[in-house]
Amino acid sequence: LALVFGTAVAFAPIPRITWEHREVGLVQFHEPGIYNYSALLMSQDEDTLYVGAREAVFALRAMDISRKQHEVYWKVSEDKKARCAEKGKSKQTECLNYIRVLQPLSATTLYVCGTNAFQPTCDHLDLASFKFLGKNEDGKGRCPFDPAHSYTSVMVDGELYSGTSYNFLGSEPIISRNSSHSPLRTEYAIPWLNEPSFVFSDVIRRSPEEGEDDRVYFFFTEAAVEYEFVFKLMVPRVARVCRGDQGGLRTLQKKWTSFLKARLTCSRPDSGLVFNVLQDVFVLRAPGLKEPVFYALFTPQLNNVGLSAVCVYNLSAVEAVFSGGKYMQSATVEQSHTKWVRYNGPVPTPRPGAGRRFVYAGSNSGVVQAPLAFCEKHSSCADCVLARDPYCAWSPATAACVALHQAEGPHRGWIQEMSGDASLCPDKVKESYRQHFFKHGGTAELRCALKSNLARVVWKFQNGVLKAESPKYGLMGRKNLLIFNLSEGDSGVYQCLSEERVRNKTVSQVVAKHLLEVKVVPRTSATPTLQ
Amino acid sequence: LALVFGTAVAFAPIPRITWEHREVGLVQFHEPGIYNYSALLMSQDEDTLYVGAREAVFALRAMDISRKQHEVYWKVSEDKKARCAEKGKSKQTECLNYIRVLQPLSATTLYVCGTNAFQPTCDHLDLASFKFLGKNEDGKGRCPFDPAHSYTSVMVDGELYSGTSYNFLGSEPIISRNSSHSPLRTEYAIPWLNEPSFVFSDVIRRSPEEGEDDRVYFFFTEAAVEYEFVFKLMVPRVARVCRGDQGGLRTLQKKWTSFLKARLTCSRPDSGLVFNVLQDVFVLRAPGLKEPVFYALFTPQLNNVGLSAVCVYNLSAVEAVFSGGKYMQSATVEQSHTKWVRYNGPVPTPRPGAGRRFVYAGSNSGVVQAPLAFCEKHSSCADCVLARDPYCAWSPATAACVALHQAEGPHRGWIQEMSGDASLCPDKVKESYRQHFFKHGGTAELRCALKSNLARVVWKFQNGVLKAESPKYGLMGRKNLLIFNLSEGDSGVYQCLSEERVRNKTVSQVVAKHLLEVKVVPRTSATPTLQ
Repeated sequence: LALVFGTAVAFAPIPRITWEHREVGLVQFHEPGIYNYSALLMSQDEDTLYVGAREAVFALRAMDISRKQHEVYWKVSEDKKARCAEKGKSKQTECLNYIRVLQPLSATTLYVCGTNAFQPTCDHLDLASFKFLGKNEDGKGRCPFDPAHSYTSVMVDGELYSGTSYNFLGSEPIISRNSSHSPLRTEYAIPWLNEPSFVFSDVIRRSPEEGEDDRVYFFFTEAAVEYEFVFKLMVPRVARVCRGDQGGLRTLQKKWTSFLKARLTCSRPDSGLVFNVLQDVFVLRAPGLKEPVFYALFTPQLNNVGLSAVCVYNLSAVEAVFSGGKYMQSATVEQSHTKWVRYNGPVPTPRPGAGRRFVYAGSNSGVVQAPLAFCEKHSSCADCVLARDPYCAWSPATAACVALHQAEGPHRGWIQEMSGDASLCPDKVKESYRQHFFKHGGTAELRCALKSNLARVVWKFQNGVLKAESPKYGLMGRKNLLIFNLSEGDSGVYQCLSEERVRNKTVSQVVAKHLLEVKVVPRTSATPTLQ
Repeated sequence: LALVFGTAVAFAPIPRITWEHREVGLVQFHEPGIYNYSALLMSQDEDTLYVGAREAVFALRAMDISRKQHEVYWKVSEDKKARCAEKGKSKQTECLNYIRVLQPLSATTLYVCGTNAFQPTCDHLDLASFKFLGKNEDGKGRCPFDPAHSYTSVMVDGELYSGTSYNFLGSEPIISRNSSHSPLRTEYAIPWLNEPSFVFSDVIRRSPEEGEDDRVYFFFTEAAVEYEFVFKLMVPRVARVCRGDQGGLRTLQKKWTSFLKARLTCSRPDSGLVFNVLQDVFVLRAPGLKEPVFYALFTPQLNNVGLSAVCVYNLSAVEAVFSGGKYMQSATVEQSHTKWVRYNGPVPTPRPGAGRRFVYAGSNSGVVQAPLAFCEKHSSCADCVLARDPYCAWSPATAACVALHQAEGPHRGWIQEMSGDASLCPDKVKESYRQHFFKHGGTAELRCALKSNLARVVWKFQNGVLKAESPKYGLMGRKNLLIFNLSEGDSGVYQCLSEERVRNKTVSQVVAKHLLEVKVVPRTSATPTLQ
């Protein structure tokens, strides 16, 4: 089998701007010796970010996560570690306590579960003292045994809803409600869950006037039962249970009676693109938004060479499938009424996440805090608009690219076009230029600080376009102009233009302007042979 | 749906060498006003290439296709064209005669079929006079009605075996034998053929001692009946019929009784790569080869962003599926014993296609003739070996990269390593260098004619590696070295090295050697202020 890769580069949408780490200076948190920062929880007042890592929980200042407020350690006893190792697990990596559940239990307590050397255990963390209360609850069904297995959980009115595996081997998947008065779970059978990989869960509250029950949604990828191809096919799913579910009778005691699941579709039929592996989900709720919206990040299972996609689902579209689609007992869900919305389409007002000011990401080595956008780094109106960043707009009054959630006062006259149409931008003539003096016969290098990866550099001399690759001119680093063998005729104004195609329109901007003056060094040669 | 493309570029194997058209000077053929050069047939003696285009057939010299020997035109009558247009087809494009079948009928006759304005017709072409004999045979089942539909055919002992569509709409696929005494065909039913796209067909002869019948193989892609996914899935197939098939009894009269088909598998499970759309097939037969080998070119149907693959099947592996695999009546073919051979693995002796000296390709606008390899363009042993071209080897005696099929005499000592291991190459010290004189204060550009897209350029000065992007040095076109503001200290030997990683080994070659001498121009300034 020989592989040939042809037009991939042509197809690939290159990110318009690449920020280097030193340019943006992100805030980081890392505690020496502590790894696997996998559970992040924001406090209700958004002042504190709780971080669950391997054998530790931290409280960090949300505005600056490098400032640690509290920490507490939860280590596995040597005894437990030894028993775990006896079962063939690694003492150094697996037989430790990976914090997987970090949920608010009350205003003063967090509910925390860890893998605890393949004996999942839960405890209550008192936020005032930042100490565990030593509850030592069995975490089976709430937290995986194996740190390598998938998990998700959400706390609803003091009851933990979770999706994970229920046994040591990780072979028995479960979606359950851990409740003292009404615990419920899925049956261990393929039609319920078939090798699921849990990604996300959340509760959607219903207002009392809707007359409907609160619902908990689970997002996961599982092995398809309705499809077949050369390899085992994966299917992304959304499952729903009702908070008021009290379980069934006889064999259905303590089993969900409200459990439904449906396929999430994310594909582009015209290009044969299928995204069937779910990677992450975010629920957007905003005061002005009619209903919650699910943003889901996917990758393809087949022929995935770096592709990913974001598909967006309205809650009502998902609900329509559950109420109007065929049940999962029938293999096909072709009658799905799921409506797709483009991620880069018009943005709702007020803009998403206007009360979120940072993005936090946990990794094996630490936690990173990044602002939502780098608006101020776009120095021209065209750059600000071409960034197509929903958080940024051009303010003609201040002649700056401003972050919408940071700006105060009226937004009048601000320019933002998600289509990238920069024609509304005021024509700006770059008046300032840099002056250079060079000696006759030398080489000049004129700089052009172009940021967009998608733009083409055009150099002009006295308004005529230069052919950059010629005996006279050269390009350094694809941007800067070299002028060889300078003579008086090379004196004059050089302009560097950035030309960028956006939806069949070319946006042209002057990035740099240089005034070059070549000075003749009069000389009298002492060696006539070289004259 | 928003798409993001991440690591594709990193994944993509870039072709090692890009030849520009002017560098290789391919031979071309194009007749003004004639388009769609889609049928190519090489004469038995390999002297003549027959080309079927739209409304014309040409005989070209195989050694130089720009030299036309004969031509004959076969146009659609105005009457037929009008009737075709009445049925809603385009008079300018569809209602013409596209030559689709071009097969040898006898030593002096070709069998030619064309779409003939949606009334497929066949005729005999006399090679001596290069005139049609006016047979005007019904071409239904031998040639498609629609020039946009797929087709394949092979002549076996005067009987045409073909795969195409049988009706005006193109909805009835057929694999048939057009024979006066025993015509046979597939049934029009999904288990036989399900929306096939025909790609290739050929006969495999059996020697009498084998005691087996000659067989005709058909290659196509069709809609899967055994698989299901978000979109309609395609499956590449190989089908087989026997030459001695005389059809069945009762309802199977004039139907194949020997028709079998199997799935062609071409995938890489570890990366989730599935290539299920067949694009082309070539049968390699060589005197020293134990059995014919099928080379098949595939693309993926899903998430295809420029990927393609070549899979290779031994005839015996295909036969093993037909004799030992489950029949197509059962949907699964998981018991397939198909053995895969890597395309870039060891090459059989004598090398494939040693009697083929050119590759011919037809397109809408003309025919192109390209040599099998450009061996002589590799100037060093390392380049010759790194090209990993099965047609090229390094001859240390003549210090040249030679084409194996053109070389005469013994091949002793020739170096060829399909792994790209160039360690067998003799160490060659590049003694020759180019001498340059530059003036003090000027800029020097030193050339480095590097051909490999995978190599890294390293410049050395007096055996020390230079940092190319610095105030003193620059790179032009990623290869040539620029030295600014020359002074006497810059005099010396500059070497351009090409460094290429091949299977965890770095092959380093000196590509260019320059001797630079900076001459001081003694001057006496007449303007003291500038001194």
